[in-house]
Order: sequence, then structure tokens, then C-alpha cells
Amino acid sequence: MTQPHYFKLRVYYEDTDAGGVVYHANYLKFVERARTELLRKAGANQTDLRLHDELIFVVGHMDCKFVKPAFLDDELLIETLMPKVGKVSFTFEQKVWRDTELLFTTSVKAGSIDAKTFKPKVMPLELLEKLKQY
Amino acid sequence: MTQPHYFKLRVYYEDTDAGGVVYHANYLKFVERARTELLRKAGANQTDLRLHDELIFVVGHMDCKFVKPAFLDDELLIETLMPKVGKVSFTFEQKVWRDTELLFTTSVKAGSIDAKTFKPKVMPLELLEKLKQY
Amino acid sequence: MTQPHYFKLRVYYEDTDAGGVVYHANYLKFVERARTELLRKAGANQTDLRLHDELIFVVGHMDCKFVKPAFLDDELLIETLMPKVGKVSFTFEQKVWRDTELLFTTSVKAGSIDAKTFKPKVMPLELLEKLKQY
Amino acid sequence: MTQPHYFKLRVYYEDTDAGGVVYHANYLKFVERARTELLRKAGANQTDLRLHDELIFVVGHMDCKFVKPAFLDDELLIETLMPKVGKVSFTFEQKVWRDTELLFTTSVKAGSIDAKTFKPKVMPLELLEKLKQY
Repeated sequence: MTQPHYFKLRVYYEDTDAGGVVYHANYLKFVERARTELLRKAGANQTDLRLHDELIFVVGHMDCKFVKPAFLDDELLIETLMPKVGKVSFTFEQKVWRDTELLFTTSVKAGSIDAKTFKPKVMPLELLEKLKQY
Repeated sequence: MTQPHYFKLRVYYEDTDAGGVVYHANYLKFVERARTELLRKAGANQTDLRLHDELIFVVGHMDCKFVKPAFLDDELLIETLMPKVGKVSFTFEQKVWRDTELLFTTSVKAGSIDAKTFKPKVMPLELLEKLKQY
Repeated sequence: MTQPHYFKLRVYYEDTDAGGVVYHANYLKFVERARTELLRKAGANQTDLRLHDELIFVVGHMDCKFVKPAFLDDELLIETLMPKVGKVSFTFEQKVWRDTELLFTTSVKAGSIDAKTFKPKVMPLELLEKLKQY
Repeated sequence: MTQPHYFKLRVYYEDTDAGGVVYHANYLKFVERARTELLRKAGANQTDLRLHDELIFVVGHMDCKFVKPAFLDDELLIETLMPKVGKVSFTFEQKVWRDTELLFTTSVKAGSIDAKTFKPKVMPLELLEKLKQY
């Protein structure tokens, strides 16, 4: 994956807190929406994977830097790179921007696990190829 | 059920919004916590029901009145009455208090459905008896 | 307002619960996003109103009917009508659709209040005209 | 601070997702509740600080490891240590346990900022002493 994936979203009241800014945990929701859309675009529908392949993706590790606050009504842009794709794990580098201001960055390590046993489970080969080629 | 059930909770940053008050949808979370604890006390463990009886409780109708705002750090008291218990549905009357101030009231109609088909499903007789006697 | 306002959204993991469906309180977030976009389109920016006019909109009453469950990855359409606009209050009728299936309906009564005192506060006349003409 | 602070909580439907487990971002809410209670116990009321001292605490960096899933109805224990307290920043080490199973760990770097300018702001000396002595 050489080109970053971009995803736009709007900040609503539900995302903010009494400090007048986006509640810190909600950036994790924002970047997960972006990863979901990247995966969808690359050919991975998570509902199908869960129901037909009994496979779910889970986050194993996140390193998060909260750089600047986002506010109600802001339009944010999520930039996502997927530098590593393996058989049971993959890595994302994500940034949240408001125009040219960087608000949040994260490195995410995700894994592919069995929906019932929660043990690592190899992705279908076809999906792996799609993700690598994306 | 002649005596109301009481449940206490604290307001955290996650519950508030940029208006400086509790975000309106979060009262629905608060009252659901209280219903869960009432059901647990009455003998209904929702995890067991879902995994062993393939039965889940769902909300069908809620009438909500937002009377006064709650704030960060407030300690709230949820008062719950369960005036009607039927084979596939039950009713709750719930109030959220901060000391003697009424902040929110709701009437909730909930149903018992099959976890897979999402069709109404009669509660186990033993559970029904427990809920009626509670 | 004679034409309904439409707003589209996608269901992400953050919106679902262990029942495998959208968590009931999250429909309130969905319809609030739609009301926000309707108000924005009609000329009411809530951040400006809060910071410059010290005016916030709050929900006073909601009657909610949960008709059918929504699932992960669903694309939902929110239909909103604003049948009544007064000086300190307005009413919305909202429906959540998945294609032709009705999933959720609500009647919302909202008010315009002072951001500091939380007492009813008349909307700027210009805004009132815009909302009525919308 | 030589003794860890402990905080107990219950997992409700609102905390879970369609994978049948606690949604990953919600661990950040759990550990924030624990930090809030630790700060309250140490003498720092965040509402007072925001309204009277125009000071808010914000998270600057979090390193999060998602070790094992938590489930609906689980009772979790949050263990918090505050190894460093400075004039404008402090550090927390937090762990989420279900009995003897470690589910989540995080290192949190938080800062003390001005509620209006969002620039670093030195904590009141009295508060700093309380936190150091805690």
C-alpha cells in the first residue's frame, strides 16, 4: 500500500465532552471507522468475515498521541497507511487532520482471530492477497 | 414489585458533551444499567440467557422526558419500578434523581426475543416467576 | 418545511452491542446527527450559536419506537421533518430506514436555552425566519 | 504514591460490540473513570478545577495493550499507579483485571492545561502537594 487512504467525518455533540473538545477515547472510534472503510474498499467486509468465516479483526496494541483538540462541528480527515500485512496480523499508521493541523496520530497493531475461540486465525488467502495488493 | 429498585452512579467526562451537561442519549445508558442490576437481583443474568437460552431482552418503546441537566461529577440515583411483567414483554418506570431534583423520567417497554431470529420468545417459566415475585 | 431532510450514515462496530445489533441508545445519536445537519443547512451553526449567542439547543422530550434491529455495516437513511418552529422550541419527526425497512421512529421536542443559565431563550429573529422558511 | 489505587466496575451492554466483547475504545473510558476517582480521593475535583481555576486535565499520550477480551456482565478491577507528578504533567500506569486475568494495560501521560487557551498551566501548589503526597 503506497497511497494513503483518506476518510472524512464531522464532529457531533456525541463526540465532545464538558471540556468543550472531542473526548479523547472518541479518536479511537474515528480511526476505526477509517480502517473499516479502508478494509471494505480493499475487499474485506467484516460482517461477512464474522458470519461466514467466523473471523474477526481485533486491536492488539495502540500507541496514541493527542496533539491538539478537535471541536464541535469540525470536519476531520483521517489518513491511513497499512505498512504491514501478515497472515494473522497487520499494522496501520493513522493521522487525524483538521485542514493542515495535525490533531492525533496512532500506530495500530491488529490481529485476525477466530470469532468463537478468540485465538489467532489465518485470513482467507484471497483476502490476504487483496490487502497486500491494495 | 411494590418497592422501587435504586441504583447509584457517578457522571464522568465520557457522559458529558460540549454543552457542559450530560449528553441526552447517555441517560438511556444510565437507566439501562439500572434495569440490568434490577434483573440481575431478580435472578435474570443476561449473559446466561443469551448463551444458554438464546434469549435477549430488547427495548421496544421509550418515552423520555429530559427535565433538568446533570453535570460532570454529579452523583445520580436511578429509581426503577417494573409495574408489568408478561410472558414476552415487561414495562419499567424509571426516574433519574440528583438528591431531591428530578432530572429525567422514562417509561420503557421491553420484550423478550430469540437471539437469532429476533422474534418474540416466551421467557423461561422459572424466570417469569422470579420477576413477578420480585 | 414541506420536504423531508435526508441524512445517510453507516453502522460501525462502535454502534453495536453484544446482542449483535445497534445498541438502542445509539439511534438517538444517529437522529441527532441528522438534526444537526438539517439545522446547519437551514443556516444554524450550533458552535456559533453557543459561542456568540450563548444559546444552545436541548432535547426536552423524545418518544422512541424501536421497530427492527440495525446491524454492523448497514447503511441507514435518516428522514427528518420539522413540523413546528416556535420562538423557544421546535419539533422534529424522524425515521430511520434501511432501504424500505423502517427501523426506528421518534418525535423530538427541542428547546432553545441560554448556555449559562439553562433557561429558555428566544432564538435570534433571523435564525427563526430561516428555520421557518426551510 | 506507593500503593496502587483500585476501582471496580461492571460491563454493561453499552460497553460491548457485535464481536461479543468490550469495544476496544471503551477501555479508555474505564481507565479514565479510575483516574478521576484517584484524583478525587487525592483532593482534586475536576469540576471545581474547571470552573474556579480554569484548569483542565488532558491526555497527551497513551500506549495501550489489549491483552484479552472482557465480556458482558464481567466485573473488572482497575489498578492505577501514578509514578510521576510534575507541575504541568503527570503519568499513570493502569491495568484492567478480571480476577487474576490481565485484560488491558496502559501508560498514560496527562497534562494540566488552561481551560480556555489550551496551553499548559501550572497546577495550584496545594493540589500538587496533595497529589505528590497521595
